[in-house]
Amino acid sequence: MSEAYADKASALDAVDELAKLRAQFVLDDVVYLDGNSLGALPRSVPGRVEDVVRRQWGSLRIRSWDESGWWTAPERIGDRIAPLVGAAAGQIVVGDSTSVNVFKAVVGAVRLANDGDGGSDGGSDRGSGGGGGVGGGGRDEILVDATTFPTDGYIAASAARLTGCTLRPVTPGEVPGALNERTAAVLLNHVDYRTGRLHDLPSLTAAIHAAGALAVWDLCHSAGALPVGLDEHGVDLAIGCTYKYLNGGPGSPAYLYVRRDLQSRFDSPLPGWNSHADPFGMTPDFTPAPGALRGRVGTPDILSMLALEAALEVWDNVSVSAVRAKSLALQDFFLECVGAYVPEGAVESVTPSAHAERGSQVALRCEDAGGVMRRLIERGVVGDFREPDILRFGLTPLYVGFGDVERAARVLAEVL
Amino acid sequence: MSEAYADKASALDAVDELAKLRAQFVLDDVVYLDGNSLGALPRSVPGRVEDVVRRQWGSLRIRSWDESGWWTAPERIGDRIAPLVGAAAGQIVVGDSTSVNVFKAVVGAVRLANDGDGGSDGGSDRGSGGGGGVGGGGRDEILVDATTFPTDGYIAASAARLTGCTLRPVTPGEVPGALNERTAAVLLNHVDYRTGRLHDLPSLTAAIHAAGALAVWDLCHSAGALPVGLDEHGVDLAIGCTYKYLNGGPGSPAYLYVRRDLQSRFDSPLPGWNSHADPFGMTPDFTPAPGALRGRVGTPDILSMLALEAALEVWDNVSVSAVRAKSLALQDFFLECVGAYVPEGAVESVTPSAHAERGSQVALRCEDAGGVMRRLIERGVVGDFREPDILRFGLTPLYVGFGDVERAARVLAEVL
Repeated sequence: MSEAYADKASALDAVDELAKLRAQFVLDDVVYLDGNSLGALPRSVPGRVEDVVRRQWGSLRIRSWDESGWWTAPERIGDRIAPLVGAAAGQIVVGDSTSVNVFKAVVGAVRLANDGDGGSDGGSDRGSGGGGGVGGGGRDEILVDATTFPTDGYIAASAARLTGCTLRPVTPGEVPGALNERTAAVLLNHVDYRTGRLHDLPSLTAAIHAAGALAVWDLCHSAGALPVGLDEHGVDLAIGCTYKYLNGGPGSPAYLYVRRDLQSRFDSPLPGWNSHADPFGMTPDFTPAPGALRGRVGTPDILSMLALEAALEVWDNVSVSAVRAKSLALQDFFLECVGAYVPEGAVESVTPSAHAERGSQVALRCEDAGGVMRRLIERGVVGDFREPDILRFGLTPLYVGFGDVERAARVLAEVL
Repeated sequence: MSEAYADKASALDAVDELAKLRAQFVLDDVVYLDGNSLGALPRSVPGRVEDVVRRQWGSLRIRSWDESGWWTAPERIGDRIAPLVGAAAGQIVVGDSTSVNVFKAVVGAVRLANDGDGGSDGGSDRGSGGGGGVGGGGRDEILVDATTFPTDGYIAASAARLTGCTLRPVTPGEVPGALNERTAAVLLNHVDYRTGRLHDLPSLTAAIHAAGALAVWDLCHSAGALPVGLDEHGVDLAIGCTYKYLNGGPGSPAYLYVRRDLQSRFDSPLPGWNSHADPFGMTPDFTPAPGALRGRVGTPDILSMLALEAALEVWDNVSVSAVRAKSLALQDFFLECVGAYVPEGAVESVTPSAHAERGSQVALRCEDAGGVMRRLIERGVVGDFREPDILRFGLTPLYVGFGDVERAARVLAEVL
């Protein structure tokens, strides 16, 4: 039986237009299905990092802030991520962790929701007190995805506490019913980190807007795996990490998207000197930079940031829709192989069956999932385990092939 | 005349016990006096970074979070910085930018100042609202160093706004007179970034404590250049960058110190999943980690962080008091050479004359300071310029010698 699937895998790999991209990554004979946690190393990275360390830092030293483009890296790399999430240039800055960006976005959204006069300068009312969030607007409720990756919930709780708001955890499906005239902002995950479920960004964003609130989307598990369409769907703010499907490396900096027409009113709770209109003026008063730059905070971590910039080169001439098509085909084929190889009842897929509800991972529930994943890894199939009973297999179309998922399913059947 | 000073420089270099450390840095024939902005590249760094990229990320991939010690890097590297700032282990975590750490520290200090019951768990009152800062404690004023590096002031203003406090900018000398029963926290720079003035941390901390407030010190311009004595002087919270005298590289992560006996009540405004007691439990409720770990936020930026770890190896067996002694000797000799070489009245030192009031830089005021610094750099003497009229020369005792500062003074006289 497995020969038939192996043959089918070979046939699918042979016609896969993205298959050639695998050569741009450092991979060995392991089947690496954990790119939704840490993307594999792009071959463009080591040489770039060496140049940044030895020449830019070692020889040019302080001059590199100008001459090597260090200073402008956050917005330049933001513009490189922009097309991958459906954003025009000038709306994304890279820097800080996802958690820190969630904080900027949620506090910023609460302030925007309560700031009626569309033309005001985001910095003009600094220091005016009143909890720093809800002013006269009266929108004092934040909805947060109850099924979210927990950091979003923890940070949203802190944002709520500091802005005098109430936090209401709801499932994404409950959002439309939970919206009301007091809702300031809604923080949602585009793809659930556990089940891989893709939430309906266009319709949820529209519902949030209809209620007069702002939509903040966490793209950690969707950017680089499927079309996001931030501009098209009118998303207000978004954040995401860059070390999963964007392969930026361990703890590479996250990013913040602020829709262009909100930027002049975006009022960051972390107004560091890098978000000042004239950072080297070093004036005691804060005047926010124009545009997306006001989402910056402190000095950018150049080594991690320029490694990410090199990693993004693999996306040159790659279409996100081709990536999405392959991702879905990989998932279908993996589930087909699992269905064929694994004894009935040994695993249960919690991956949504409809393509429109899927991210780019397959999640299988099974007994002793932690032990099963350990044995899989020992046999060269690397996925991960999430409490309490979920095996996660991330399918990164840039470097995972159909032969890989056939082998993963085969080894899974062997270890069960 | 210059021969006499050149001879004296040679004699001083010959007996300098730290002179051998220069070989541990990548330096060329430039006189690099900008280590107070970006430290030179330690030779230990490039090979380590290559290993982190190629082997830890490229080959081990996700396994490195455990096997390469990625997960514990923030506290491990914090413990490596600790002796340099006079702190016992377990009180410092590395991560995020200085600005972000200022935010954690100032909001955390306001909450500590208003939290009377010494034994409470820092997370137990999360979500209880009330602006998230000043509760029943009634301490609603933050003093901030009016002469500070501006990011501290901007971030302190944001912290004040979000916690319902008033921000009062004062000079460090005005602090004792400005303290009162409403003061929650005082944010001060240990060394002024512009003039190089060292503020009196022990006596100011004592005055702040006598008023019942908390002292937050910014060590950016002192750590690695002079003894700080955080534990000895009972500092409450401290933050600092690592890319100046600690040579961590461009934008390398900053650190946060929380005094041990305050840790159980430290209530971070940025409670990311990395500060959770059980990060991989991924529970919807936040329970802060014990100890300094609750100062962590999101996923650490591993490339920048492990470059810093390698850079800190140069400190093995180096005593901070020896560094301090050499720093003062370099400053004295540089000023002596400037006095001898530079025409009377062409520059004015704004460096305090008393050793006890000095950091590790010499600041000279002169006309057209920006133009003068450009010409110095063209002639191989790299310092920097700060508005409106300050030439800054950072003297890093680990790699700057007496011959370097003699040459710098000589070239300065030539370009003036």
